[in-house]
Amino acid sequence: MTLSHVRILGSGLIGTSIGLGLALKGVGVTMVDNDPRAQALAGDLVKSPSSAPVDLVIFATPLGAVKSLLDREYATNPESAFIDIGSVKSKVKVEVSTSAIPTTRFLPTHPMAGREMGGAESARADLFQGRAWVIDSQGIDGDVRAKAHELIEILGAHLVDLDSSEHDKAVALISHLPQLVSSLLAKQLIGGEASWLELAGAGLRDTTRIAASDSKLWREIIAANRGALEPLLKSLHSDLGTLINSLDDESSIAKLIEEGQEGRARIPGKHGGKAREYTYLPIVIEDKPGQLAALFDECASASVNVEDLSIEHSPGQFTGLITLALSDIDAAKLSEHLKSHGWSVHSPRQ
Amino acid sequence: MTLSHVRILGSGLIGTSIGLGLALKGVGVTMVDNDPRAQALAGDLVKSPSSAPVDLVIFATPLGAVKSLLDREYATNPESAFIDIGSVKSKVKVEVSTSAIPTTRFLPTHPMAGREMGGAESARADLFQGRAWVIDSQGIDGDVRAKAHELIEILGAHLVDLDSSEHDKAVALISHLPQLVSSLLAKQLIGGEASWLELAGAGLRDTTRIAASDSKLWREIIAANRGALEPLLKSLHSDLGTLINSLDDESSIAKLIEEGQEGRARIPGKHGGKAREYTYLPIVIEDKPGQLAALFDECASASVNVEDLSIEHSPGQFTGLITLALSDIDAAKLSEHLKSHGWSVHSPRQ
Repeated sequence: MTLSHVRILGSGLIGTSIGLGLALKGVGVTMVDNDPRAQALAGDLVKSPSSAPVDLVIFATPLGAVKSLLDREYATNPESAFIDIGSVKSKVKVEVSTSAIPTTRFLPTHPMAGREMGGAESARADLFQGRAWVIDSQGIDGDVRAKAHELIEILGAHLVDLDSSEHDKAVALISHLPQLVSSLLAKQLIGGEASWLELAGAGLRDTTRIAASDSKLWREIIAANRGALEPLLKSLHSDLGTLINSLDDESSIAKLIEEGQEGRARIPGKHGGKAREYTYLPIVIEDKPGQLAALFDECASASVNVEDLSIEHSPGQFTGLITLALSDIDAAKLSEHLKSHGWSVHSPRQ
Repeated sequence: MTLSHVRILGSGLIGTSIGLGLALKGVGVTMVDNDPRAQALAGDLVKSPSSAPVDLVIFATPLGAVKSLLDREYATNPESAFIDIGSVKSKVKVEVSTSAIPTTRFLPTHPMAGREMGGAESARADLFQGRAWVIDSQGIDGDVRAKAHELIEILGAHLVDLDSSEHDKAVALISHLPQLVSSLLAKQLIGGEASWLELAGAGLRDTTRIAASDSKLWREIIAANRGALEPLLKSLHSDLGTLINSLDDESSIAKLIEEGQEGRARIPGKHGGKAREYTYLPIVIEDKPGQLAALFDECASASVNVEDLSIEHSPGQFTGLITLALSDIDAAKLSEHLKSHGWSVHSPRQ
């Protein structure tokens, strides 16, 4: 380990979550915030003091606050490496280039994690576990990159190296557009009867969850990334107009729903990586301890590799349904094997 | 109890979930579907045969299939009560009024529950627990209403009596609009680079979850309810146009985000589903064949019952994160057991 003392500017969700994760691994952390209450809370949560020299400064403030802190932080910690965690990368690169910090000492980064609840209160050490953490490492000193790599590894994220302008286009599509769509949808609820909203189910809750996000953060993010967002919003506007004009045409509606399915399917599953084509094998089992183990023993003796699985059962239900995701060949092999051993296997789905 | 034999037409998600819930309480159930595979799977899951006369027929088919079945079902079960579970109510009322079934014997209903995954495979007995179940009881015979009340009570839902046209306006806002918005958003993903989508987080996943819904069901629902949907879509279209023209104005963006917060806050809090209170135990495993089987062997030897699980792992990552949902007691027991056997168990979350 080389990181010994990390200075985190900004004691919000991301900054404090980083602090918690580092503290767990024994890295010294200093939490800073211009709000004394937030700084005190974060410091108390993280509790990992250090008197060692600062070897990494993390700008975890809102986008608009970075610029004014760059010169001060470089003057205080001239030997340190510097990174930020902002949602838009092109902007901070420009700001650093006009600051005292040499551009080779400042690595733009963006952890792809967040919650709709902000603040140190919502922080959690495992916020970054399994998430992508984008960096733009071109032209950055090796020791700065090494410290960032170590940080990302400690926090359980995986590193993705991406040019800043490419990053900004990506997040416009996968993060900023969904945020605006969720807000626009939630806004429409203002006009509904309260009794209607009592009927709301998981669909409305999920689609509007991120509409609860902080407006101070998002006003900056959207404005900073408007160049990448505008064509996406215009395309959506046009598609919505088309829909309004074809509400009585079932085949047009079906086409939109199918295009939505196609887009949705492009999001990598739990496995991430390239979307893989699995065959899904449904198996009805008795809902009691030992059944899953017995089933996986059968998988092992049939030498098949279970890629993913889901369990459906309800409290008090006598049977459970396990759906195994398998390769075509493994699904056929396992289906035969299980049937010959008395399991209740149903027809596979693609 | 008065219900003894319920005939369910349609072995999809809703029909099979109703069947599972009734079977748990000892009510006889006949599952019917024009797809023999679906009917066989649903019958195997529900397993509650009866030779008693049918006292309730439930139309749990897609909207468009109800009309052609009305006369046949009345001819076969003239003493029965009839209900449907369709997402749009005005349409079925018209269809019944021109069928052999007296309008007083057919109660239009709509359980406010669903999932983006259809089919008997996704059914669960507790799908309706704590959910609203809308009925339009005006002018319906008392014995028909009583049977529907009993059904709704058995399934743990709560009854909401609402005029059909009022219902249709409510679901346009809280269900059909979110569906279309989710599909429109997901459609935009078709144009993105695959590498961008690998960065997707929970926000994109949640906002596009229902975009995976079935197009055959939704083409009918949207077209059937277009009258109530059109003004909502036009309002959204106008708001989106305003946003596009004010992307460089942070205060306009902040206003939209705040209006979204306001709309989101109108959704009642602890609604929709009696919360299943599990403890979630995260376990880091090596991402290779045989690890799941080994883990479930440990679960079996510790005699704990796994209620649910999720698997997360990222491209290129050598480890995966399994989260097991367990009862409090089982979580503590399993955590201790796994730790003593060298597994990498993390602190449980409520």
